[in-house]
Amino acid sequence: MAGKRLKKALRKIEKLKKRLKSLQASAPTEKPVTVSPLAPKDGFPDLPLIAGVRFATAEAGIRYKGRTDVMMAELAEGTAIAGAFTRSATRAAPVLDCQEKLGKPAKGGAAILVNAGNANAFTGQSGQISVEAISAEVANVLGVDRNRVFTASTGVIGQPLPHDRIIAKLEKLKSKLADDKIAEAAAAIMTTDTFPKGAGAEYEADGGTIRIAGFAKGSGMLAPDMATMLVYIFTDAKVSQKTLQAMVSKSVDPTFNSITVDSDTSTSDSLIVAATGKSDAAEVGDLKSPSGKAFHAALQGVMLDLAHQVVRDGEGASKFVEVNVTGAVNDQDARKVALAVANSPLVKTAVAGEDPNWGRIVMAVGKAGAKADRDRLSIRFGDILVAENGWVSSSYTEEAGATYMKRQDLVIGIDMGLGKGASVVWTCDLTNRYIEINADYRS
Amino acid sequence: MAGKRLKKALRKIEKLKKRLKSLQASAPTEKPVTVSPLAPKDGFPDLPLIAGVRFATAEAGIRYKGRTDVMMAELAEGTAIAGAFTRSATRAAPVLDCQEKLGKPAKGGAAILVNAGNANAFTGQSGQISVEAISAEVANVLGVDRNRVFTASTGVIGQPLPHDRIIAKLEKLKSKLADDKIAEAAAAIMTTDTFPKGAGAEYEADGGTIRIAGFAKGSGMLAPDMATMLVYIFTDAKVSQKTLQAMVSKSVDPTFNSITVDSDTSTSDSLIVAATGKSDAAEVGDLKSPSGKAFHAALQGVMLDLAHQVVRDGEGASKFVEVNVTGAVNDQDARKVALAVANSPLVKTAVAGEDPNWGRIVMAVGKAGAKADRDRLSIRFGDILVAENGWVSSSYTEEAGATYMKRQDLVIGIDMGLGKGASVVWTCDLTNRYIEINADYRS
Repeated sequence: MAGKRLKKALRKIEKLKKRLKSLQASAPTEKPVTVSPLAPKDGFPDLPLIAGVRFATAEAGIRYKGRTDVMMAELAEGTAIAGAFTRSATRAAPVLDCQEKLGKPAKGGAAILVNAGNANAFTGQSGQISVEAISAEVANVLGVDRNRVFTASTGVIGQPLPHDRIIAKLEKLKSKLADDKIAEAAAAIMTTDTFPKGAGAEYEADGGTIRIAGFAKGSGMLAPDMATMLVYIFTDAKVSQKTLQAMVSKSVDPTFNSITVDSDTSTSDSLIVAATGKSDAAEVGDLKSPSGKAFHAALQGVMLDLAHQVVRDGEGASKFVEVNVTGAVNDQDARKVALAVANSPLVKTAVAGEDPNWGRIVMAVGKAGAKADRDRLSIRFGDILVAENGWVSSSYTEEAGATYMKRQDLVIGIDMGLGKGASVVWTCDLTNRYIEINADYRS
Repeated sequence: MAGKRLKKALRKIEKLKKRLKSLQASAPTEKPVTVSPLAPKDGFPDLPLIAGVRFATAEAGIRYKGRTDVMMAELAEGTAIAGAFTRSATRAAPVLDCQEKLGKPAKGGAAILVNAGNANAFTGQSGQISVEAISAEVANVLGVDRNRVFTASTGVIGQPLPHDRIIAKLEKLKSKLADDKIAEAAAAIMTTDTFPKGAGAEYEADGGTIRIAGFAKGSGMLAPDMATMLVYIFTDAKVSQKTLQAMVSKSVDPTFNSITVDSDTSTSDSLIVAATGKSDAAEVGDLKSPSGKAFHAALQGVMLDLAHQVVRDGEGASKFVEVNVTGAVNDQDARKVALAVANSPLVKTAVAGEDPNWGRIVMAVGKAGAKADRDRLSIRFGDILVAENGWVSSSYTEEAGATYMKRQDLVIGIDMGLGKGASVVWTCDLTNRYIEINADYRS
């Protein structure tokens, strides 16, 4: 009986294989995971070494095989640590843990431990147990207070984190710590990212050089509540935790909270900025002081660079789009419009198809919930005036629009004609590749 | 032994089928416009004839070739007309015109004139001129007050409507008016729709039968601000304009405003309900009366049926999804959660991939901005309890989830565990086909 069914099944396999073969023959060639066409041409940048920070990576086999998936950063005694996190109501256990620790008085060295492949999110009681187990062991191995161990996990939601596999690698990680391994660290925390993202800055301050170096991972589940991201930025500046936190909080909105790939918000978004104080430069003052302003500008520059790279590696992205809204009644309204346009599937698919379909931009402006007057609105593609006075501009030609849309980096300018409110949001297009990546992420 | 090999073979078949499916999805072969797999099996329904309403259609060649693209409905003297419209800030000229006319005192017959292929939206002054020209000519041809002519246009935004092509067909349309042409009328207003959508009801009321028949078009640019739709519903009931409008306004939220395909809101959404009063049944009372309740229930049933059909013809849809939220702090919060889940690209792509990825549902709940407690949340696929107490349910198996996801109609149940707030939203999945349709809609 089973023999008969087996025969039938084997015939079915043959049939399917045949069908598969014929389809493969006509398929538009294989689609291996290739690096995003929007990736920086020169690869991972040369970043300044940050005194007081050492990195190590390992293959813990949490989900991925044949690649590193754990990153350890060891931070010197006295390092000031600031952060910003997702506001999701269903935040992952490591996020809740980091938020709690940031508020506590800090002493001694510190550490960051990140794994990729499993988000340890919505894992109930076991999630907290994993975080505590990892924190305690990292503290033990590196000789730091467990309240100074910041962990993060990124990957699939809802599966218990096999934290023993991470703990088993801690001694090895410690033995491999080195100050020049930031590129490896950036690679170890990637999930669907197609390239590691790094950015840095270096400038002469009073008394010496201040250096900043950081890295980030994206790249789906991205929306402007910190996007889906883990971001780690290191500096040798001497700066108080309070000042550092104020700067980070202020810079999150115009950088990471102004990017969106798919309007979805991760349960795990985390940004940590660590200042070791090892620079010879004088202590950085607060946001009002010249030294504070200089450092804040450099830090925000690094944050913006990383934020843009995250968008450039948005799942399936083939275009980088700046949505620049001016003339709104106020900044809040401008932001509503910018986000409505940047998150509109119809705008994003038009961009993917290189279709200068400005009608969809009008649609998205209309649905944003901001004050709008159709007849005062104007729309630009780069410098090209597309629409004004409630209609297509007399100078606009479809050819000019179509040519512009072939560019890789686009600027959609929207002037509401109502006031001085302004906002900029960065996004990417919505392509078949996004669907492919997300329709079988787990399989 | 054979049993084991059989099992293995069956697994292999599943694998091959999956691979085949993904290849087929990406295959470059011809993509004819095929009817949505979610379309009603029996085609356009047999709808009751509504005394006092006659339809005609014509090929005006506005954009499409070889198909009808204009629909005229003539309404008997004394017809009460109610409506609901998009709240977009960039509404199209015909929408503004209809809204103005609905508020005016009404006498005599009435007419509806709809074209497909051009939305007459964001067409500046010329948009209003087109509406006025069409209204005046229809009024002239049919002998009705021009304030009783309701027009609508659907299609591409931002291009002037060649209204002369419509006007040239008016006499012919008049000569073809007939009471049994509702299916043709439904077909003439389609844009990217793959099937015409009709629904009706008929019931015995005091003194006679009351009949309702309506049709709708979708199917992209759909979000719960009336979705992208034109909807026309006709009834022979005797009902005052005030009562009819109250019923329409009340029923829009749980029907057309509770569906979403892609979170984008059209500039042209219009719903018109016309009651000719030709039924022998006694006049319908207000919402508190038994006769009012009966009529309202029948009307809302027709509206819900049409709303569901619009989702079933969502661009690229392969699954029909009900998102059913209960236990929220209040109905507003429940609605926020339902919409966040229904609009999440990550949830929608998981559904497309038949992946029971409930972690993404947790993510979407978290980002909704509603009060949520991770540990009181429970998630169900149909009757299958998936997650509770902040983690996957002990009774849940991935196999059960995967089997459930293969269905065409899915129910995602979310209980917030916090209160009595509830909301239901209907949506479809997000597939490659959506991208294909929208990346080259105009080309």
